[in-house]
Amino acid sequence: MMTDKEETITPSDSFTDLDITKKNYGSTNLMDTLDLPTGIGQYDDFHTIDWLRDIARDRTRYRNMVQKTSEGFWQRMKKAHDAWSGWVCALLVGMGAGLLAGLIFICTTWMSDLKIGICLNAFWLNREQCCWAANDTNYEEEGDCAQWYSYSKLFGIKNSQGTGSYIVEYILYILIALFMAGLAAMLVRVFAPYACGSGIAEIKTILSGFIIHGFLGKWTLLIKSVGMILGVASGLSIGNEGPFIHVACCCGNIFSYFFPKYAKNEAKKREVLSAAAAAGVSVAFGAPIGGVIFSLEELSYYFPLKTLWRSFFCALIAAFVLRSMNPFGNDHLVMFYVNYNEPWYLQELIAFILIGTLGGLYGAFFIRVNIWWCKYRKSSNIGQYPVGEVLVITFITALVNFPNYYTRIGSSQLIRLLVNRCGPEDYHGLCDYNRNITNVNVYGGSAVSGNGVTQAIWQLVLAFLCKGILTVFTFGVKVPCGAFIPSIAIGSILGRVVGIAVEQLVLANRNSWFFANMCSTHEKCTITPGLYAIVGIAAVLGGVTRMTVSLVVVIFELTGGLLYIVPMMVAVMTSKWVGDAFGREGIYDAHIQLNGYPYLDNKEEFTHTTIASDVMRPRINEPPLHVITRDSMTLEEVECLLKDTNHSGFPVVVSKETQYLIGFVLRRDLNIAITNARKILDGISNESIVYFTSHVPPSEGVMTPTPLKLKRILDMSPITITDQSTMETVVQMFRKLGLRQTLVTHNGRLLGIITKKDVLRHIAQLENQDPESILFN
Amino acid sequence: MMTDKEETITPSDSFTDLDITKKNYGSTNLMDTLDLPTGIGQYDDFHTIDWLRDIARDRTRYRNMVQKTSEGFWQRMKKAHDAWSGWVCALLVGMGAGLLAGLIFICTTWMSDLKIGICLNAFWLNREQCCWAANDTNYEEEGDCAQWYSYSKLFGIKNSQGTGSYIVEYILYILIALFMAGLAAMLVRVFAPYACGSGIAEIKTILSGFIIHGFLGKWTLLIKSVGMILGVASGLSIGNEGPFIHVACCCGNIFSYFFPKYAKNEAKKREVLSAAAAAGVSVAFGAPIGGVIFSLEELSYYFPLKTLWRSFFCALIAAFVLRSMNPFGNDHLVMFYVNYNEPWYLQELIAFILIGTLGGLYGAFFIRVNIWWCKYRKSSNIGQYPVGEVLVITFITALVNFPNYYTRIGSSQLIRLLVNRCGPEDYHGLCDYNRNITNVNVYGGSAVSGNGVTQAIWQLVLAFLCKGILTVFTFGVKVPCGAFIPSIAIGSILGRVVGIAVEQLVLANRNSWFFANMCSTHEKCTITPGLYAIVGIAAVLGGVTRMTVSLVVVIFELTGGLLYIVPMMVAVMTSKWVGDAFGREGIYDAHIQLNGYPYLDNKEEFTHTTIASDVMRPRINEPPLHVITRDSMTLEEVECLLKDTNHSGFPVVVSKETQYLIGFVLRRDLNIAITNARKILDGISNESIVYFTSHVPPSEGVMTPTPLKLKRILDMSPITITDQSTMETVVQMFRKLGLRQTLVTHNGRLLGIITKKDVLRHIAQLENQDPESILFN
Repeated sequence: MMTDKEETITPSDSFTDLDITKKNYGSTNLMDTLDLPTGIGQYDDFHTIDWLRDIARDRTRYRNMVQKTSEGFWQRMKKAHDAWSGWVCALLVGMGAGLLAGLIFICTTWMSDLKIGICLNAFWLNREQCCWAANDTNYEEEGDCAQWYSYSKLFGIKNSQGTGSYIVEYILYILIALFMAGLAAMLVRVFAPYACGSGIAEIKTILSGFIIHGFLGKWTLLIKSVGMILGVASGLSIGNEGPFIHVACCCGNIFSYFFPKYAKNEAKKREVLSAAAAAGVSVAFGAPIGGVIFSLEELSYYFPLKTLWRSFFCALIAAFVLRSMNPFGNDHLVMFYVNYNEPWYLQELIAFILIGTLGGLYGAFFIRVNIWWCKYRKSSNIGQYPVGEVLVITFITALVNFPNYYTRIGSSQLIRLLVNRCGPEDYHGLCDYNRNITNVNVYGGSAVSGNGVTQAIWQLVLAFLCKGILTVFTFGVKVPCGAFIPSIAIGSILGRVVGIAVEQLVLANRNSWFFANMCSTHEKCTITPGLYAIVGIAAVLGGVTRMTVSLVVVIFELTGGLLYIVPMMVAVMTSKWVGDAFGREGIYDAHIQLNGYPYLDNKEEFTHTTIASDVMRPRINEPPLHVITRDSMTLEEVECLLKDTNHSGFPVVVSKETQYLIGFVLRRDLNIAITNARKILDGISNESIVYFTSHVPPSEGVMTPTPLKLKRILDMSPITITDQSTMETVVQMFRKLGLRQTLVTHNGRLLGIITKKDVLRHIAQLENQDPESILFN
Repeated sequence: MMTDKEETITPSDSFTDLDITKKNYGSTNLMDTLDLPTGIGQYDDFHTIDWLRDIARDRTRYRNMVQKTSEGFWQRMKKAHDAWSGWVCALLVGMGAGLLAGLIFICTTWMSDLKIGICLNAFWLNREQCCWAANDTNYEEEGDCAQWYSYSKLFGIKNSQGTGSYIVEYILYILIALFMAGLAAMLVRVFAPYACGSGIAEIKTILSGFIIHGFLGKWTLLIKSVGMILGVASGLSIGNEGPFIHVACCCGNIFSYFFPKYAKNEAKKREVLSAAAAAGVSVAFGAPIGGVIFSLEELSYYFPLKTLWRSFFCALIAAFVLRSMNPFGNDHLVMFYVNYNEPWYLQELIAFILIGTLGGLYGAFFIRVNIWWCKYRKSSNIGQYPVGEVLVITFITALVNFPNYYTRIGSSQLIRLLVNRCGPEDYHGLCDYNRNITNVNVYGGSAVSGNGVTQAIWQLVLAFLCKGILTVFTFGVKVPCGAFIPSIAIGSILGRVVGIAVEQLVLANRNSWFFANMCSTHEKCTITPGLYAIVGIAAVLGGVTRMTVSLVVVIFELTGGLLYIVPMMVAVMTSKWVGDAFGREGIYDAHIQLNGYPYLDNKEEFTHTTIASDVMRPRINEPPLHVITRDSMTLEEVECLLKDTNHSGFPVVVSKETQYLIGFVLRRDLNIAITNARKILDGISNESIVYFTSHVPPSEGVMTPTPLKLKRILDMSPITITDQSTMETVVQMFRKLGLRQTLVTHNGRLLGIITKKDVLRHIAQLENQDPESILFN
């Protein structure tokens, strides 16, 4: 029995479908009057789309257009427009995504620095630009330049030593952070509730064929962009990489409205969205190829190879637009670029495996605790005060972050610091090594650490703990927030600390046989802690997201060489295996499950031994399936059926006794056909027989009411399976063909129906989860 | 009617299938005795595999293993072995492919040089190594060193000027080339006929689910490797990049025999083969990521994401093994590495589009003429003398190649020469520029060309013509041969020539507003002809193979930076569009069609409006489908049916009158079951009724023969469609579910059957090709 109104076919498409077959025309005299209001919004909110049907519909549209081509210039233009529209749309989406990303990057840096001070001469510049514009050579990482006014300097507040007042700056830092985060949360709450979170879980669900109206709308786009800037600038432990994907998909959705091919066809629109997602990753990481592979591996469901090429184009355009905006002030696309190519040694693989293990453990911890907290938030009354929650977390974050240099500076700056090696000109903090520098142009290799390094390590460990714990509770609050940048920051700290430890270990034992090949002379050992930071990034990201190929490709693009790809792979593999031991899903899949989105995973294998008859409705002891017979029901009976049930479609059978299946008819088509018939045709009464056959028996007298011939709205090729089919096969069919429902038969007789929701419920049940946790809204 | 013995299900798997459902057990007392000889070779040669069935079989195997896990240490070990086997296999395949590729590269270079001379002190060294080992600083590109003996030097033959005799060297060059090519052709003819050609078309077909025994065997591997070395060394216009993929797949096939999981399951084996193909491309181009994407885009059919990650691993291992063998004598993986990063200008896009157009035209020309020639070879009696054909082509090639420096040197060396820029130390031939070199360390940019360049251009144009024409006739001869390297060589010549032309054009008009931004001072314009050569490579390869993303990624990996990716994309896109205007298929697809391989393309959209009843057998006026009834046929009737027909399976219906479908039974299962029953069961006679039902009516007397209960061998979940289904949907189901056949029903009654071969025939018919051109052998 079809208990779910949301499931099973939506209407209005079967006409085009039936037009294809050309053999289905029953009584065209009636049905010509039946003009269905087609157009956008063929699916209602929170409905599943039918891929097969949508794609068939697009082909029909294309065929109709091609047939008209001979009709002249205008049709030719239309055809050319259609052929190009995919590329033009990809171009526009790429440009939009790149532009927005550039703007967001620039604004974020500027507003982040606003927490500390202001460029008095040119308030629109961030600290780095301010000092750079003033050509102040005294500018250093930690220092200020003359043009840059920290707030204590601005207000002329000085402490006893004559420098700026720490307390005033601390308080202002917290206040500004609170203001920004609060504003972001308010904006999201008031204008666009869909703008919160990273959006990746929802985008995965949407790409798998689900409709969430407004999730990719212009308001979401606007609020997400602004909220993202404010949120990240407030110093919360969030990043804008995840939200970039959402923003790019919003662009994709908005631009697709200019192209009827995509606007009116949800399955085709998903091609644009896949490309947009690739562009989003491309700008987030400056990795166009990685973006495409991410979109392919992680996000997309239906990804024909034609789309691959277009996604690549889109991602590339986005990367180049971003690059020409040059938001990072260097010629690279990315916030951290690795400019060294020191070798690595086989022994170091032990350390990389260790980092991978730690990354996997952190990932598992992150997912567990985050999901627990999100569940707690839902069930307790914290969820009712989203702005309050954001303010509390911002307060704690700001309070904890300010005293520690490595958390006070933005995450991006921290990451940049950690993945770089210590050049000969760096000599404080992390780079406080006891070096005998003879030639400034030659990189000295490793050296014994000084006090600065020891202090930096403690600060980094503290930063690791703060960020590690805060991120868990921050990811999921009601501001736009991504888990990528915090994970990267945590990973780079982890890696760098291990790297320094290994470096010092090797230096201390440089005469040991085990390390012999790593040190060429007594003084020169080449261990690069920056490389360990990159490995740490790979490990933690692998643990949190469980990405594989795309992660390695992204990091390959960041480091720009094959040299470090083996360390990456080792870290990512270890991390994934360790993480998988605690639970197989990444953070996004966990959030999909938490929110009960109807996502039929196409990566997990269905390993159970159930068969279709275990899953189908009606179950044993349930009333039989509501069906329509092909030539024996009166109009009144059909209308009663429509009134009494809320299924969106009904199987049509030969007779209720035999139950031989003929086809499937949609509620909406039935409704419209009946309404039209009653309006237009004479002699239609409650006693009219509804016929789904081409042959209608001649009426036996004047008193017989006019029969209602509805063959044309009958879908005569529903997908069927037998009751003995294994669920393995059924799940494969649902995944690969993008079905919404399938009819179950036994020896040709209709037995029941399986909808996508039934399949999801069944899977949840087999995994000992509450099957009712799968919500469709 | 199922007319094709080759098509429709092969036997022996249904048992495991039926074990899954657990509800199918009919009379186990009989069927327990039915031990089918499972194991390797479940499919016969030139058969299509059934993906759904094979994958289900693998799951069952896995489940059985997991259930046994509690049984002790040995089972645990087995499970661990099973879990690891995919990775171990990928590791082995990667190592094998890398090792073989390294050996082949080294041998090829050595044997290529053997045509010109020999290293007398150490005959196993090629010319470069010979001179390098001798530490001879006089060694230059064209010159010889003291240790290297050209044949005239070796035999002390000198001409009037005292240098080596040109004629002697010429003749020896031709003779040695003839010997090598003849040997290669003989080896292929005698030992491994499958070793000829590039093998990519066949591998595509195999990966799409077709069985060609011996195509990936050890003999093919050996002969292909040796033949490839000989063929390339002979100077034929062929490359070893395509064959590398074949060699890697042979490795994949051979190593998969060590892992029962893969050896016994053709669908699973294709996972290994996909990974192996990725490794093959990875070593051929030194591009692991490109390899994976090539395998994904171009070769593979069934590519779950788990396989993607493993393929990546495999490709990476292969690349690293090759790298550590260092066959090119530099630290890079590839035969041509671009070490410059000069900027390019927007105006240059015009030239890139021009190159793209030329590349597309050449590609279209290449495919057309090559296919025409291959068809001619097949129909005329040239095909009967493969060795003779090879010798003739080798003779012409050697005759033409020797006088021209750019064709005499190997293709790889030529490509390396053309993609590089002219350093300050190069000053002859291609690099004969009139430069005012002040500082040797600073690259001078473009300069006005000297006579050397003019001469080189003429030689290059000649080389372009020779190679361009010879390749067309060479690709497809009966030696191992790939079209990649010749295409790359042709593309690099094309690009370099255009590049030099543009360079001189800009220099001549350096004061024009159009070129203003390209020249910083009067003397320094930065046009890099080497970049044009790379663009040319992309263009010609794009035209010949119609690859898109993977091609760009491969070239991205070769050039190692995002800088030149836009020129590449422009060239590839233009080239593909221009090429597609003359015919949509790449060279491999054209060869698949030429050979009539049963390859159901998963990239092309099925755009026709036919429905299932147009395609199914039996057609109108044909005798009805052979079916078996569930409970009314005698053993004799069934045996007659088996004898009279050669279908490999029969639908089982309720009765011949109603034709309601119950299931599908395989010829081989029937055969075995009947043989076993006659042997073991008493009372089985010709009059025994064959039952496919669980319930058997009690016998009505002593004289009734024992009934034969065969429910257990019945597949009760055949995939069915209705006769009104659009072929679009049917083709999608065939592609995505990997079906071999589907049964066609109407209102639950069986109407007919559609096999994969029927679908392919139908597609061929719609494209106005001869449907009988699709051969299964």
